[in-house]
Amino acid sequence: MLFHKIEEVRAKVSDWKKQGLTVGLVPTMGALHAGHLSLIKKAKETCDKVVVSDFVNPIQFGPSEDFDKYPRTLNADEKLCDEAGVDIIFAPSADEMYGEGQRLSNDILTYVCPPFFYVNTLCGKSRTGHFDGVCTVVLKLFNIVQPDYAFFGQKDAQQVIIVRKMVNDLNVPVKIVQCPIVREDSGLALSSRNKYLTDEGKKDALALSSILNNIKSCYNKGIKDVNALKETAYSFLTDKHDMEYLEIVDKNTLEDKKTADDDSIALIACRVEGVRLIDNIYLKEGE
Amino acid sequence: MLFHKIEEVRAKVSDWKKQGLTVGLVPTMGALHAGHLSLIKKAKETCDKVVVSDFVNPIQFGPSEDFDKYPRTLNADEKLCDEAGVDIIFAPSADEMYGEGQRLSNDILTYVCPPFFYVNTLCGKSRTGHFDGVCTVVLKLFNIVQPDYAFFGQKDAQQVIIVRKMVNDLNVPVKIVQCPIVREDSGLALSSRNKYLTDEGKKDALALSSILNNIKSCYNKGIKDVNALKETAYSFLTDKHDMEYLEIVDKNTLEDKKTADDDSIALIACRVEGVRLIDNIYLKEGE
Repeated sequence: MLFHKIEEVRAKVSDWKKQGLTVGLVPTMGALHAGHLSLIKKAKETCDKVVVSDFVNPIQFGPSEDFDKYPRTLNADEKLCDEAGVDIIFAPSADEMYGEGQRLSNDILTYVCPPFFYVNTLCGKSRTGHFDGVCTVVLKLFNIVQPDYAFFGQKDAQQVIIVRKMVNDLNVPVKIVQCPIVREDSGLALSSRNKYLTDEGKKDALALSSILNNIKSCYNKGIKDVNALKETAYSFLTDKHDMEYLEIVDKNTLEDKKTADDDSIALIACRVEGVRLIDNIYLKEGE
Repeated sequence: MLFHKIEEVRAKVSDWKKQGLTVGLVPTMGALHAGHLSLIKKAKETCDKVVVSDFVNPIQFGPSEDFDKYPRTLNADEKLCDEAGVDIIFAPSADEMYGEGQRLSNDILTYVCPPFFYVNTLCGKSRTGHFDGVCTVVLKLFNIVQPDYAFFGQKDAQQVIIVRKMVNDLNVPVKIVQCPIVREDSGLALSSRNKYLTDEGKKDALALSSILNNIKSCYNKGIKDVNALKETAYSFLTDKHDMEYLEIVDKNTLEDKKTADDDSIALIACRVEGVRLIDNIYLKEGE
């Protein structure tokens, strides 16, 4: 079922809850790919009913970012969801979510603001207000759908960590499930933004996963010094790569480390053909 | 039942919900008086089960405010709640609410931030961060108790307006019920902070309700100009009164008005004997 209205979703979920059924939510911005489908699969395994939200959230994009050009493929998404056995696709308008004609600013909108220490690093450094927008829409979706479980991809690692922190700090009664990154055979992490890349760009984009795999391999061969690990990246970079960050931090708190350990995660953000790509990897062998 | 732990409350409420019972929450900072009891009475009339939270919330007090000296009377509160037929008193520690040893700052805590236009006026002007702290704890309590209804007093008018705005903006599935101000026979609005006043101070404090009643009376005699209405206050003030604000604004949006109308509310904040007191009144006859 495709729903555009909050009240439709609420009524349906309320019916389910009366029957004692468990509900899983997979929050997406649409443009669904195999990464999203892996979240849906996990949700289907975990819960009786699955809701996929399909909403390009304006308040998590900065003024110079790709909100207008972000891919919108609702018809294709609906087909994929039907095939995957999704019970509800919730695709609201921005007016439905934020009120008709309402300016989207913290002058007139209540925001959920994750902690400065979690935001002022990695993607948050270049994307001011991004995680405020993410937490606000995720909490709205949680309040609308009232799921028992919500499913997020490890691809947006900082996002999952911040959402977990929000859930903990605000006592949100939703269990967060993180699912592994899905990659093309080439190693490229799936992303809706890969659609912006030419074939040539996709080849250049392989540097991200190569750098991360190499760091993991070096770590497991005994190199623990973070600076030394980061320096191994240079050999993969060309003038096609506009690096934003490469960091090795604690996988739960995002705290900087000088020495890597089994709780470390390496994260990278890099532009290729002007497209901002991110990827990450846990350093511990087998994770 | 007196509970100190989040999980105890959740388990009990979950039992109730399975039985199809409705739940009302009365959030308080304790030091219960007849104002709170009127909220509890309304909650009892509206819901099958009533939870009163009794928690002096550290993050809504500024560094120079009265957090340490704020009255704490849990034993007396418990007795009043028992007599009033309250089902659960939830009196958590600050550690239970915010994590042991956690510094209470937006560096490391997720906050709910109400909109600037609602905060940067009236009490919010002098109490920086106060309403962030209020919204954060109220949302936490909503997520812990998951009530169908929550009850707030009109006494803290800006607070109710901001909580309603939060509920609307974040799609929180709780209905907000506002209850009228309870006053002593003298006209003094009940407040836990009245305990700080001497008998002399309580007499001086009557200026607040007198000023508001007089403004309402003048409005209903035909004076609509806001400045003219505000000027009627001077005759009630002595050197015992340290006025913080007297404003006439829209009762739903807190927008300033030049001309009062039936949607107007007059609000006052004034210190007497160093104690910060607030009061308010709807200008429309009969409200």
